[in-house]
Amino acid sequence: MSSSGPRPPHHSKARGGTLQGATGRGHCRRAIATVCLSGTLEDKIAAAASAGFDGIEVFEPDLVASPWSPAELAARCADLDLSIDLYQPFRDLDSTDDDRFARNLRRAEHKFDVMAQLGVDTVLVCSSVAPDAVDDADRLAGQLATAAARAGDRGLRIAYEALAWGRHVSTWERSWDAVRRAGSPALGLCLDSFHVLSRGGDPAGFADVPGEKLFFLQLADAPRLAMDVLQWSRHHRLFPGQGSFDLPGFVAAVLATGYAGPLSLEVFNDVYRQADPARTAVDAMRSLQWLEEALALREPASGLIPPPAAPALSGWSFTELGVDGVSGLRAAEVLAALGFTHTGQHRSKPVQLWEQNHARVLLNAYDNRADVVRPAATGVASVVALGLESADPGRSAARAEAMSAPVLPRTRGAAEAELSAVAAPDGTQVFFTRTVPDGWPADFLPTGQQAGPGAGITGVDHVGLTQPFDSFDEAGLFYRAVLGLESQEVTELAAPFGLVRTRAVTDPDRSVRLALSAATLRRGGWAPGVPEPQYVALATDDLVATAAALRAAGAPLLPLPDNYADDLEARFDLPAEVLAAIREHDLMYEEDGAGGYLHLATEVLGDRVFFEVVQRLGGYDGYGTADAPVRMAAHRRRRQAAAVPVPRWTDPRGR
Amino acid sequence: MSSSGPRPPHHSKARGGTLQGATGRGHCRRAIATVCLSGTLEDKIAAAASAGFDGIEVFEPDLVASPWSPAELAARCADLDLSIDLYQPFRDLDSTDDDRFARNLRRAEHKFDVMAQLGVDTVLVCSSVAPDAVDDADRLAGQLATAAARAGDRGLRIAYEALAWGRHVSTWERSWDAVRRAGSPALGLCLDSFHVLSRGGDPAGFADVPGEKLFFLQLADAPRLAMDVLQWSRHHRLFPGQGSFDLPGFVAAVLATGYAGPLSLEVFNDVYRQADPARTAVDAMRSLQWLEEALALREPASGLIPPPAAPALSGWSFTELGVDGVSGLRAAEVLAALGFTHTGQHRSKPVQLWEQNHARVLLNAYDNRADVVRPAATGVASVVALGLESADPGRSAARAEAMSAPVLPRTRGAAEAELSAVAAPDGTQVFFTRTVPDGWPADFLPTGQQAGPGAGITGVDHVGLTQPFDSFDEAGLFYRAVLGLESQEVTELAAPFGLVRTRAVTDPDRSVRLALSAATLRRGGWAPGVPEPQYVALATDDLVATAAALRAAGAPLLPLPDNYADDLEARFDLPAEVLAAIREHDLMYEEDGAGGYLHLATEVLGDRVFFEVVQRLGGYDGYGTADAPVRMAAHRRRRQAAAVPVPRWTDPRGR
Repeated sequence: MSSSGPRPPHHSKARGGTLQGATGRGHCRRAIATVCLSGTLEDKIAAAASAGFDGIEVFEPDLVASPWSPAELAARCADLDLSIDLYQPFRDLDSTDDDRFARNLRRAEHKFDVMAQLGVDTVLVCSSVAPDAVDDADRLAGQLATAAARAGDRGLRIAYEALAWGRHVSTWERSWDAVRRAGSPALGLCLDSFHVLSRGGDPAGFADVPGEKLFFLQLADAPRLAMDVLQWSRHHRLFPGQGSFDLPGFVAAVLATGYAGPLSLEVFNDVYRQADPARTAVDAMRSLQWLEEALALREPASGLIPPPAAPALSGWSFTELGVDGVSGLRAAEVLAALGFTHTGQHRSKPVQLWEQNHARVLLNAYDNRADVVRPAATGVASVVALGLESADPGRSAARAEAMSAPVLPRTRGAAEAELSAVAAPDGTQVFFTRTVPDGWPADFLPTGQQAGPGAGITGVDHVGLTQPFDSFDEAGLFYRAVLGLESQEVTELAAPFGLVRTRAVTDPDRSVRLALSAATLRRGGWAPGVPEPQYVALATDDLVATAAALRAAGAPLLPLPDNYADDLEARFDLPAEVLAAIREHDLMYEEDGAGGYLHLATEVLGDRVFFEVVQRLGGYDGYGTADAPVRMAAHRRRRQAAAVPVPRWTDPRGR
Repeated sequence: MSSSGPRPPHHSKARGGTLQGATGRGHCRRAIATVCLSGTLEDKIAAAASAGFDGIEVFEPDLVASPWSPAELAARCADLDLSIDLYQPFRDLDSTDDDRFARNLRRAEHKFDVMAQLGVDTVLVCSSVAPDAVDDADRLAGQLATAAARAGDRGLRIAYEALAWGRHVSTWERSWDAVRRAGSPALGLCLDSFHVLSRGGDPAGFADVPGEKLFFLQLADAPRLAMDVLQWSRHHRLFPGQGSFDLPGFVAAVLATGYAGPLSLEVFNDVYRQADPARTAVDAMRSLQWLEEALALREPASGLIPPPAAPALSGWSFTELGVDGVSGLRAAEVLAALGFTHTGQHRSKPVQLWEQNHARVLLNAYDNRADVVRPAATGVASVVALGLESADPGRSAARAEAMSAPVLPRTRGAAEAELSAVAAPDGTQVFFTRTVPDGWPADFLPTGQQAGPGAGITGVDHVGLTQPFDSFDEAGLFYRAVLGLESQEVTELAAPFGLVRTRAVTDPDRSVRLALSAATLRRGGWAPGVPEPQYVALATDDLVATAAALRAAGAPLLPLPDNYADDLEARFDLPAEVLAAIREHDLMYEEDGAGGYLHLATEVLGDRVFFEVVQRLGGYDGYGTADAPVRMAAHRRRRQAAAVPVPRWTDPRGR
């Protein structure tokens, strides 16, 4: 079940057109503002080109800090087949007295010189935020017209944008009013999805704007946050598909005007500002691919060619633990105590198949992947791969590749099934499979062991994967765009060693559920067990019976404090026998609006993975996160109680 | 100039009284909610006791996750001489229908059982946030009275608190109205500084509340943030003296009512949730010491005994770089090129004194400190100590000790000056000194080298210290409380490799300035030069002349991009000769409202420290942070250009 390192995503950078001009090319022109990416200008353009972008917006501070002259930058971009689509931002131009406006024009002329050297024809002017900006529509329009005339004389043009926190111009309608009043051919509008949607603006009104007056389009998504719009914009913007805004609706309204420029990303985000720009750029590209797919499906006549649709996923074929000699023995012992049977041995690799009804766990003691987490021989086991049942594995892989996912090549023995896999942002391998007799199970030779009665475990409910913080939002988009899963709301929980952010991704039928989590701020050190372990949640229809069977079989169930059951008794009106079972078997219980959730945890194998066994009651749709702090504290205690030091997992990639 | 490891702060935990009862004890009773600290309940109470707190508030989820029964916790606290002052929180008790209220009372009875075992008599009930809470003052008062009667029957009492985001009760006035209407002896008020001050509440109104109806007082500071008050409260609370609220005024108004309970901290903060609780608890204790000092000075008749006042600081006696064989030679070379002269050699240690007018730099190649950063022999130099001119060094040290600062013992040779030093939160040693003939300079034997003409450097303007993110707020309070400096506004800047937060601390005369900075989110990895280097900013009255002298002497001045000067030309109306000098000598320039700032940077020595030379024009009061991104990108380029790998600094404490 293993591969030899991910291939970088392949990009065929056919020059795209707009929605109107997309016929025959299949996609829109795609651009990204350099401010989206971390590093120096050199780092940024290399990343944008490598991810397949057609163009960039040059963020002025990036150029100011660069040793390249504007002409040199233009040459480098040409070498990389990147156009320069916008120079930005020019601040606080207008709505001021004549003296200051004259100084601003002088400043603008300097920047026009820079633009001429860059070979870019459009500059972004954003609405004034000066505390003493004058609220005078005629003066505003007049000063914009004067500046636009200067630009026009040099073959340049101004795209005027309403900042959501502009002093007097803070809505796109007011910016359009100013552009209309100015009536200058070198003056048009820049629309930014964040500035419009953060204030509840309605894109339907764009229909009044002629497409040729729409000079530029900037795109950003964002989570819904109740905070000052300036802070929201500066720290929390996301790429399309990562947040809560209706970007497809927004862009469709823009394109309906006849807008003919690129779709350009402008995302200010604390994480992306400091993360590897090459990786961020791929994430950004994926966001536009996702967005264009939504547009293509909405407007079949657009000429946009959608990628292969994501085939339906119908469940788990397997979850795979990477083990070494020490942890493999322990994992086998625990699986046996959980009621699993070792039914198969891989034909060519040291991989065991363990089964219990529809739950299948692989123990993989060998791995030739270069770039994927390998537990050293320290007794640590970890989740390294997920097998998902796809209606069409080949199409799933094609879809993944079209969505810039790193497809993993795979070494395959004679008579072995071909498996397609991609690497998720946290390095986990995701296999697209069909569990049919001549499918992947045929790679395993029967051990001859017959499955016993088991412990009532019916399958896998979900898998919990701890994410590196920097790729948490990337992961949400990855599972949404690449696998076609639904990305659920982000929630935070106060865990004993710091806040934890969680988000589930699921298919519509809830047959595949992944619970993703990341420590929001833990940077290390004092607490043991960092990062939090991953887990595999196994399903049962009767947790009390299953728990009794597990205990009888000697499974390493995690002891919970009596205080926890006392608190349940205070909070819920549970039947006495359920409470008694909770106390006897160290079960956890919580409710959401639709039902209840009974679950238990095992101890951690090494310090990187544990099992849960869960029973959903009624329509409960969560993942037990309310109980997570109690479980984490209990895991911590077991570690402290262990006589020997717990082996520590380290990520060789240094995340 | 070195010491052998910090002593832990010493606490004489005489039981304190209230302001009214403080006479003879000298301080108030001090408590801390367990939710302020990271870890399990076991970690938290150990940290609180070690820092010298008198009592705790038990945060219910901490108890629920603990294996200790309530009675066991009570016994452990008794062992540690900690009282349990409050059980909290009880949510959504009231303003509901009879059925649900009956269930809530049942839940309350369970919690009263827990309280009886804990031996705590007061429970915090916070105002309902239920979306369907009924807005009915009589029902609210009636239900509170019913619950209080149940509590009173068991010798317990309820402290009712208005959450700033309560459904109907969100101001202290409304909570007081409910308590008054209920008229129950077992019902009183809990006042929380955050809930009152975040909504702009006026503590003057507390005068209407009889002290005996004030059952509890919770304290938190916070920065002024424009965001949803719930998020503000949950993530950004700070300890008193770290934020922007007037805590002394708030507490004085509470104490004036006759309030007789403890000053208790309740701080929800993303950083402290995941930081070492032992360290956080000391920081928390210092915040109450700072607060009580302000109260004592405000109310001399209170009986509170203030610590020794912080003596005035009047400048820099020295800054000390820790060096090894490689970096020592390089540092000496650079100091010589900067116009310094090696004037003294320490009597007993391998420490050199370099001087130029009032600027003094020590190069220390030896260090016996156990817990302080030591550069390994890798060519890295770093700032390890600051010498500050104190009007009374002995009193400065006594003050520091009273403010829970770790005082450093010092090995002292015969005929050497006694120096008092404390460790700042980032590990830097801070010495209190007087530069007089028989003071610390007498520890140095003259080298016989006569100071040359120099390069016009007159002294030290400021020192820039990169802080570990986790101790950024702690550092602000440390310099404020321990050294009596003013803590200035926090600002953020968008640097090439991530956001950087900065804050300056200064004395009122600006003779001692420290610029503290921390990467807000960088967790490593892709960018070189992490963390950002420290620097020593040297002052000159004529930077252009000084720069020319430095260049002539071969100082390693940092080259800047031409684009930077072009941008200055566009933005400012600078005289042509100044612009020419900026271009010729790679100077930087920025303005604030009061003046301008000309400055230059050297290359980084190793990867941990560099020098700036700065000239303040007019009333400029900043630290050149607007230019920092350009400087950082330039430093990055020099590193990339270096043929040999740059030595990396690592902090042996793992921060």
